[in-house]
Amino acid sequence: MTKSKTIPVAIQGERGSFSEEAAIRLLGKNVEVHCCEHFEDVFRAAEKRRVRYCVIPIENSLAGSIYKSYDLLLRYHLQIVREVNVRIRHNLIALPGVSFQQIRTVMSHPVALDQCEKFFERYPRLIRQSAYDTSGSLKKIVEQQWRDCAAIAGERAAKYYGGEILMAGIEDNRENFTRFFLLSSEPEVLTNADKMSIVFSFSNAPGALFKSLSVFALREIDLTKIESRPIHGRPWEYLFYIDFLGKMEDPKIQNALNHLREFTEFLEVLGCYPRDSRQRKKRM
Amino acid sequence: MTKSKTIPVAIQGERGSFSEEAAIRLLGKNVEVHCCEHFEDVFRAAEKRRVRYCVIPIENSLAGSIYKSYDLLLRYHLQIVREVNVRIRHNLIALPGVSFQQIRTVMSHPVALDQCEKFFERYPRLIRQSAYDTSGSLKKIVEQQWRDCAAIAGERAAKYYGGEILMAGIEDNRENFTRFFLLSSEPEVLTNADKMSIVFSFSNAPGALFKSLSVFALREIDLTKIESRPIHGRPWEYLFYIDFLGKMEDPKIQNALNHLREFTEFLEVLGCYPRDSRQRKKRM
Repeated sequence: MTKSKTIPVAIQGERGSFSEEAAIRLLGKNVEVHCCEHFEDVFRAAEKRRVRYCVIPIENSLAGSIYKSYDLLLRYHLQIVREVNVRIRHNLIALPGVSFQQIRTVMSHPVALDQCEKFFERYPRLIRQSAYDTSGSLKKIVEQQWRDCAAIAGERAAKYYGGEILMAGIEDNRENFTRFFLLSSEPEVLTNADKMSIVFSFSNAPGALFKSLSVFALREIDLTKIESRPIHGRPWEYLFYIDFLGKMEDPKIQNALNHLREFTEFLEVLGCYPRDSRQRKKRM
Repeated sequence: MTKSKTIPVAIQGERGSFSEEAAIRLLGKNVEVHCCEHFEDVFRAAEKRRVRYCVIPIENSLAGSIYKSYDLLLRYHLQIVREVNVRIRHNLIALPGVSFQQIRTVMSHPVALDQCEKFFERYPRLIRQSAYDTSGSLKKIVEQQWRDCAAIAGERAAKYYGGEILMAGIEDNRENFTRFFLLSSEPEVLTNADKMSIVFSFSNAPGALFKSLSVFALREIDLTKIESRPIHGRPWEYLFYIDFLGKMEDPKIQNALNHLREFTEFLEVLGCYPRDSRQRKKRM
């Protein structure tokens, strides 16, 4: 029997995490997941070709953009080759046989803890403890056999570490999705790529942002997201990240990018990829 | 002798913090600082009129926007009445008489730890420990008389808690400023107010962001900042926060806001205030 070829991919966090779920949705069940503690390690693993791909969360529909990911997209020269929106469902998970009454401490990633505010209001006896990962919290509880501790994590984590779900879907808001990017160190554009991400800056001039957006609006190219990040060493100047719908080879898109180059001091295409059509981004 | 009247103001973090420095720069030495652990408590203290004002950080020139502050500006109905940019200078501070060689652990706010990356690379023996506040870390070290611990905090903290600066200016990048807002529960517009902050959203329509910016660009009103935050419960739709230069009573500004109302579904003026001219925001 030959083992089917696996695809090495780096993620931040542990096995059983939402990032692992995203990796499987993006690449199939044959992924060979490399777990990294820090975001920077994830980018580095792909840039140094220790893995073919990496998967990073870029924004959450409640918590907003993940700054660290935006900053690292600029620093590392990887291409965005796919995107996926993953529904985030938080569960309270403990060791098998432990009852809810025994739980004193709840561990998870700070964003997950924040997203279960109403749950904590209902049970004020519970102490919240921040950890670097949702799934990693459960891993630790299982390793240490902590019976007064529960983790907030996804269903996948419960299965992976043999935890028991004490309460399912404890998040405040069900419209909770995280958008992930698949990044590659090698240029790769899928034939159905119909969405693009770019980053640019302009020398300071009144109306420069308006002009930048006009190259899209005047060609009826739809934006789906804009994000600004500070430029290091130049206080109160910003880089702009824009996502828009369009195919790289479309002359309209090429014209828009050339037009944008006329007044930007820096412009980089971060990737062209098929939009996730299961849960479509609104246009702006 | 009569004591001069003090001005009660809530801040996040402890005495000796950069927020306290901002409060003094904004209101003078007669401030009576009320320390809160969480941002939400700061806003609540002002809304419930337990203090006349509160001071919140809104963005840092290296780390970017402080999301929590943006989200709370919307939830609480306070007015921005002043702004100030404070230079952030990080120092390594320990108990008096402790030498640098004795230090094993360095405590501070995670953003401050991140901003001293090169310092930690130079001294890999040092363990980083996250805390909720820069100044609060030093307070704890002094209270507990920890001799193997140092805090990263401002000079004001060293003076306030009687700590000794072991190394001054250990931040990676000197162009490090935090912009603070003074918020008031009562409407108050200073006569020299020449800058405004607004927040708005629009029903989804291609080109809507471009149209929104056009109401400013076509009237030559300069933007200084744009920030987007997700709308809860409506995945991939956003609120936009914009700062621009202009006086509330200027007909041009009134026309621009009326024009913007034609296609926004929500629009709120967060405040009109004099821009901090010591370190001026660039225009975009």
